[in-house]
Amino acid sequence: MIEYEKLEDSIVGFYKNEVTVKHLAESVEYSLKAGGKRIRPILFLAILEGFGLELKLAHYNVAAAIEWIHTGSLIHDDLPAMDNDDYRRGKLTNHKVYGEALAVLSGDALFLDPYYFIATSGFPSVMIVNLIRELSASSGSLGMVAGQVIDMDSEGKKVPLDFLKKLHQLKTGRMLTFPFVAAGIIAGKEVDKLRKIGVTLGLAFQIRDDILDVTADFESIGKTPGKDILEEKLTYVSLLGLEEARQELQKNLEEVKVGLSSLKSFNPTEVLKIVEQLEL
Amino acid sequence: MIEYEKLEDSIVGFYKNEVTVKHLAESVEYSLKAGGKRIRPILFLAILEGFGLELKLAHYNVAAAIEWIHTGSLIHDDLPAMDNDDYRRGKLTNHKVYGEALAVLSGDALFLDPYYFIATSGFPSVMIVNLIRELSASSGSLGMVAGQVIDMDSEGKKVPLDFLKKLHQLKTGRMLTFPFVAAGIIAGKEVDKLRKIGVTLGLAFQIRDDILDVTADFESIGKTPGKDILEEKLTYVSLLGLEEARQELQKNLEEVKVGLSSLKSFNPTEVLKIVEQLEL
Repeated sequence: MIEYEKLEDSIVGFYKNEVTVKHLAESVEYSLKAGGKRIRPILFLAILEGFGLELKLAHYNVAAAIEWIHTGSLIHDDLPAMDNDDYRRGKLTNHKVYGEALAVLSGDALFLDPYYFIATSGFPSVMIVNLIRELSASSGSLGMVAGQVIDMDSEGKKVPLDFLKKLHQLKTGRMLTFPFVAAGIIAGKEVDKLRKIGVTLGLAFQIRDDILDVTADFESIGKTPGKDILEEKLTYVSLLGLEEARQELQKNLEEVKVGLSSLKSFNPTEVLKIVEQLEL
Repeated sequence: MIEYEKLEDSIVGFYKNEVTVKHLAESVEYSLKAGGKRIRPILFLAILEGFGLELKLAHYNVAAAIEWIHTGSLIHDDLPAMDNDDYRRGKLTNHKVYGEALAVLSGDALFLDPYYFIATSGFPSVMIVNLIRELSASSGSLGMVAGQVIDMDSEGKKVPLDFLKKLHQLKTGRMLTFPFVAAGIIAGKEVDKLRKIGVTLGLAFQIRDDILDVTADFESIGKTPGKDILEEKLTYVSLLGLEEARQELQKNLEEVKVGLSSLKSFNPTEVLKIVEQLEL
């Protein structure tokens, strides 16, 4: 059983107890507690449990490190120079509360600290090196950040479906794939297969996001239209149309379920529940 | 002998050859080639040589990782929301050339990528874990970023000398200490002693910076006065006066030299040359 309180303790505990610069700790904590659904760390922990591992503090700490990088990227994404968002999940964004300078530094902290947290997790050194190599490649110039730059560069441009897939595989896919890869590294199980499942789930996640951006508009007339449309963002819906996007989402989620069910010595029940929540 | 071309290759090679997103690679390369003096990586390599190690690609790659984090922090420091600098070392700052969004993302990349580079350096796993733990603690919420937040919070305030020391130990000191610690980890030598020398050198470095900010003004009348004074920044000169700051610098540099000369199985010649260049 995932203990959600333990997860929250790992996510905020470092900033509460070990970071002595009050202003920095406050700002980071604010964003860490701003209503994130913890999908990445929960996926990671659920996969470990599926392999029969008993969850320990070290696992919760690696889970927290994933959420830190994700949260850091949201803080920077929301900056005026980037997406310029005042609200996220109904709460003021970090820079609206703490100012831009501290928002930049809080994101920086959330990118630099996870490596300390994983390096001191107590796992065997070879395992730590593998986790860190994968996390850095998933988040930096070979992953998430590269995707964000491609996304920025392609705004308002017409690009083919393959390009869109590549963009999202980097931008959101890699950090959604990492929980699968990391769980495989720690459980000592089929990493390549887990990576493939993670990539497919990442894709499904993005298609779902694109659909929701449009359907929220369709369903509640009078609401501001989807931000993606306003910004002429390339989405699965704009490229495939709503119906085909829905089919693509369903196809990918099915593929994830088949993949999970084919893993050896793995009880997929809990992970399948998370996947099913992504169905529309 | 440190091969400076090899160092440059390690610093820019990853972005030239492995980062496929052109716009991101260009922006990061621009800042990496913007005239940095490479003091941190050169210190690291010189200490390794002092211990008699033959420098290999892995050493140059760790050296590059240090420069990456340093450069990332400069890009973010220069942002309009932070120090708002248009020029650094006579060249336009990153955001003036590539825009703020890409400057934020380029700094992010330079914070996230070093861990991949070190994790894939080929050193034994235990050594890599120690290097990464120290680098992350030197750069994130336990080091550089914490110092930047304290610095920001204390602008225009009167604080005691101890506070100023603490601030700089975090803000600039930790990333100047890391080359000493990292060399000790790799050479398997007196890490604690090296850390102490690094802390003292970091302090000397900051005092020197503060003196130069004022003397550049004293010596060339008609020039814009030092930026620190304009911004009412707390400096060693404002706290101690110019003469005492000079003495403090000299005292710290002497301490560094004594420390270096006391290391076992260590030829301090090259490192001493670097330290002497810091004398005013």
